[in-house]
Amino acid sequence: MKVIIMGGVAGGASCAARLRRLDEKMEILLVERGPYVSYANCGLPYHVGGSIENEADLLVATEQMFKVIFAMDCRTNCEVIGINAAKKTVELKNHLTGEVTTEKYDKLVLSPGAAPIRPPLEGIDLPGIFSVRTVADATNIRKWLERDVDRSVGNSFTGVDTVSKPKHAVVIGGGFIGLEMVENLVERGLTVTLLEKLNQVMPPLDPEMARLVERYLVKHNVNLELSDGVAGFRKASKGGLEVLTEKGKAHPADLVVMAIGVKPELALAKMAGIKIGERGGMRVNEQMITSDPDILAVGDAVEVKDFVTGDWTLIPLAGPANRQGRIAADVLAGRDSKFRGTQGTSICKLFGATIAQTGLSEKTLKRIGDTDYEKVYLYPNSHAGYYPGAKIMPIKFLFRKSDGKVLGAQVLGEDGVAKRIDSFAMAIQMGCTIYDLEEAELSYAPPYGSAKDPVNFAGMVAADVLRGDMPIVHWEALGDGFILDVRNPPELEVESVEGAINIPLPQLRARLGELPRDREINILCRSAQRAYYVTRILQQNGFKARNISGGMLARSHRADG
Amino acid sequence: MKVIIMGGVAGGASCAARLRRLDEKMEILLVERGPYVSYANCGLPYHVGGSIENEADLLVATEQMFKVIFAMDCRTNCEVIGINAAKKTVELKNHLTGEVTTEKYDKLVLSPGAAPIRPPLEGIDLPGIFSVRTVADATNIRKWLERDVDRSVGNSFTGVDTVSKPKHAVVIGGGFIGLEMVENLVERGLTVTLLEKLNQVMPPLDPEMARLVERYLVKHNVNLELSDGVAGFRKASKGGLEVLTEKGKAHPADLVVMAIGVKPELALAKMAGIKIGERGGMRVNEQMITSDPDILAVGDAVEVKDFVTGDWTLIPLAGPANRQGRIAADVLAGRDSKFRGTQGTSICKLFGATIAQTGLSEKTLKRIGDTDYEKVYLYPNSHAGYYPGAKIMPIKFLFRKSDGKVLGAQVLGEDGVAKRIDSFAMAIQMGCTIYDLEEAELSYAPPYGSAKDPVNFAGMVAADVLRGDMPIVHWEALGDGFILDVRNPPELEVESVEGAINIPLPQLRARLGELPRDREINILCRSAQRAYYVTRILQQNGFKARNISGGMLARSHRADG
Repeated sequence: MKVIIMGGVAGGASCAARLRRLDEKMEILLVERGPYVSYANCGLPYHVGGSIENEADLLVATEQMFKVIFAMDCRTNCEVIGINAAKKTVELKNHLTGEVTTEKYDKLVLSPGAAPIRPPLEGIDLPGIFSVRTVADATNIRKWLERDVDRSVGNSFTGVDTVSKPKHAVVIGGGFIGLEMVENLVERGLTVTLLEKLNQVMPPLDPEMARLVERYLVKHNVNLELSDGVAGFRKASKGGLEVLTEKGKAHPADLVVMAIGVKPELALAKMAGIKIGERGGMRVNEQMITSDPDILAVGDAVEVKDFVTGDWTLIPLAGPANRQGRIAADVLAGRDSKFRGTQGTSICKLFGATIAQTGLSEKTLKRIGDTDYEKVYLYPNSHAGYYPGAKIMPIKFLFRKSDGKVLGAQVLGEDGVAKRIDSFAMAIQMGCTIYDLEEAELSYAPPYGSAKDPVNFAGMVAADVLRGDMPIVHWEALGDGFILDVRNPPELEVESVEGAINIPLPQLRARLGELPRDREINILCRSAQRAYYVTRILQQNGFKARNISGGMLARSHRADG
Repeated sequence: MKVIIMGGVAGGASCAARLRRLDEKMEILLVERGPYVSYANCGLPYHVGGSIENEADLLVATEQMFKVIFAMDCRTNCEVIGINAAKKTVELKNHLTGEVTTEKYDKLVLSPGAAPIRPPLEGIDLPGIFSVRTVADATNIRKWLERDVDRSVGNSFTGVDTVSKPKHAVVIGGGFIGLEMVENLVERGLTVTLLEKLNQVMPPLDPEMARLVERYLVKHNVNLELSDGVAGFRKASKGGLEVLTEKGKAHPADLVVMAIGVKPELALAKMAGIKIGERGGMRVNEQMITSDPDILAVGDAVEVKDFVTGDWTLIPLAGPANRQGRIAADVLAGRDSKFRGTQGTSICKLFGATIAQTGLSEKTLKRIGDTDYEKVYLYPNSHAGYYPGAKIMPIKFLFRKSDGKVLGAQVLGEDGVAKRIDSFAMAIQMGCTIYDLEEAELSYAPPYGSAKDPVNFAGMVAADVLRGDMPIVHWEALGDGFILDVRNPPELEVESVEGAINIPLPQLRARLGELPRDREINILCRSAQRAYYVTRILQQNGFKARNISGGMLARSHRADG
């Protein structure tokens, strides 16, 4: 049997390597359009930033390694220019020699990946506008940043270097790549404008959690421009470029990075005549088989099932691509492996902070019309408060109202975020409930956590809500409800809510007579901890009481704020 | 109803606080023998070391807070000196006033904790020998370290300070507290001897994993003395102490820390006449009720079920104590909460490293006579190898041979250990199999992990074993078996195994004729990755082939080494 795999990197290369391990006799041809059969595309922003200094460090496996270690035919700089699915042949063009050959296959694996979106805007082809997909992209950005020739208008006349190196960058798009590029360009000393068409950065987050990221960007001197898209580019009169926006602004830019997302490369799929799904990716079954039983597909260009919603989705991430490659290899080797779908786990470093999410966001729940959920906002310490370096770690936690099943989590912080998001990710994979999280035995020592880990805490708070021990209300649903602020007067001096009545917690039991019995009492403190105690006291004394989830801390980035 | 809770800190204090939240009317009396009702005993070593500078930072909640916020009677410096379980009364002695009172209870909660073991050795009461259990202990060690009076014999005569401050410390016992004390004393500039009676440090680890910790201690200039117990103490002729060992050594010590373990405080249990289990703790059911239906017990002094083995065990850790306190409160408030048992998750910081484990060790499996398990050794990078700071993270992973269930994991490393141990912990709690770990969607970006996370990798390697794709053998079972080393010659120059045949992986397919067909071929490389490829090649070519799990890296700390 002969298998041709088109496209290296995460999906194709892992498929090829595993297929050889499973079957020593199979004839395998691995074809990659670019010069490298397997490179670390997740590392590209860090190569631009310089923390990964050498281009060679980005190369994961070489063509030679696939040939020698995995005993397969491996061709780089080689592009598929035709597929005849009826005859089961592909036409290949060697870009170095120009030679075109035809190869027959028994099974074909497509791993074309996804390409950066590059809209046909005016000036898009001006020098200095880059995407970040390939090693060459990263290297070209570095060269552009490191060149020391003058680009000023007067240069050719005066011969004097008046502008030595790029100083201002505009990053267009505030998703993973955009944020990673912002960080790396700032760390190279550039001033950076981040232009984002949506009203939030980091689309997998809900907007109120993204607010915290936006605040953090501004704190790091990033010029953040939300709700404004790119309209075009032009040369600036003093050299460099200008990025023109839909709102009519012009941002000076010595360098522009386009990071407005990626879309599946469908040229191969179209040649093969296989089915494309409504999300614009190749449609595959759990075994990664396309509508043509002899063609499999893996990686960024396929649609996969979100196993929490059951919906088709595109998930251009290395982890799933890698697993899909393995599963395709299993299937080709006659095994019955199945891809379980995705749950959207992702993580991003941003300066000293970490942004992570897994499972469903509230946005997604609203989009699919699912109302059987509740959410809580938590602000636990990243580790024991008394051990140095503890920082508040904001968490938005979503769970099913009817049965307590864990639905999703969004975690931000400066340490220990990965630890928590992975626990939530395992919980979602295994169908855990909030009651399981209450009882989870997670690692604790003061440098790493608390006896009640933030993950336990999420389960406990959620369970308090579902058990009816702590009715809650969210800021956006509060309207002009009655607010009882149970913080101490010095805290109110820093920040208070207009119209709220203040009874500090220590005085509360003695002053119950001051509270209305005919109204819902919405209880407020800093993080909702003391308000929880008060909710319990009032409930048991016959009042209608609700805790304002997340308290003042949630108010600072409220969903409708 | 009146509930008396004896003992604050993790178990008792969390029980008291939750009980008040659940029931505003219940009469609650919280009694603590010491001066602080709730303090961070996990933080004590760091107070000694100075990273937690102020004693006040160790106080989690005050007596006043329990009185005012939780509206209960709370008495510190108050000891229970008698329990009459028939009459349901306790006799309390106030240590400040000397007053003795008798209190009636409907329900009693015992949270006495566990006391450091302090054997009746000669000289044990000499000044300079400390345990680390209370705030006073930590403060006294600090005072001892910071005093600048002369302790030399000649001082009272000469009046000259010849010895200013303690320079040499001996820590006795290499468990959690012992290692944390070693770190903190080294960081204060002392030279430290660690004396451990067993042949390994950190008893929850298997010995070969402990070897790595021991190597790390030595690298940090700790004088490590294994397999030698303390026999006594005496004054040294030049001032200070000497720690005498069972093997006849005498280690000079200006400071001695006893950390040879803790044992449940059973005085209260004996007064109450309740049942003690064979592990020496109070026996409770899942609702934390002792043999007396009106007496509950929580924390370090109770035996709990190891839910992986089903055996009774003692688990003196803050996390379980905290959960038990909550569950006891639930039960007292009429709810049906149950403690699910423990799985032995723990973590310890040691200089820049982290040591963590969850679930069963191989030692435990052997002790209980369970042979239905397999293990693998893994040495993945802590995060993407091309991103700065990646370090090898040794993992020992145990799983059930018959069904692939995850049994236990031991993880060592310099970053990202907590992230992995918590994923393993969630996996064990939820009854995951290795096949679930293969497919887990964990967070990945280059600073945090790899597209195949070490947790996925553990699942994949284990699944390769159970699916029969990769038979393995362990160093201790190898005997004089035939070894095929598939590393490259330069690697062999650094370190090689006597008698092993070398065929580098790239040459292997061409040199199969050199290999015996009648013998088991044990394949070796650095980390067992290349040996896996070779195992696959040989298996499919009709050879009997096994991968030596963990390769040269496992050999460096082999179980029988």
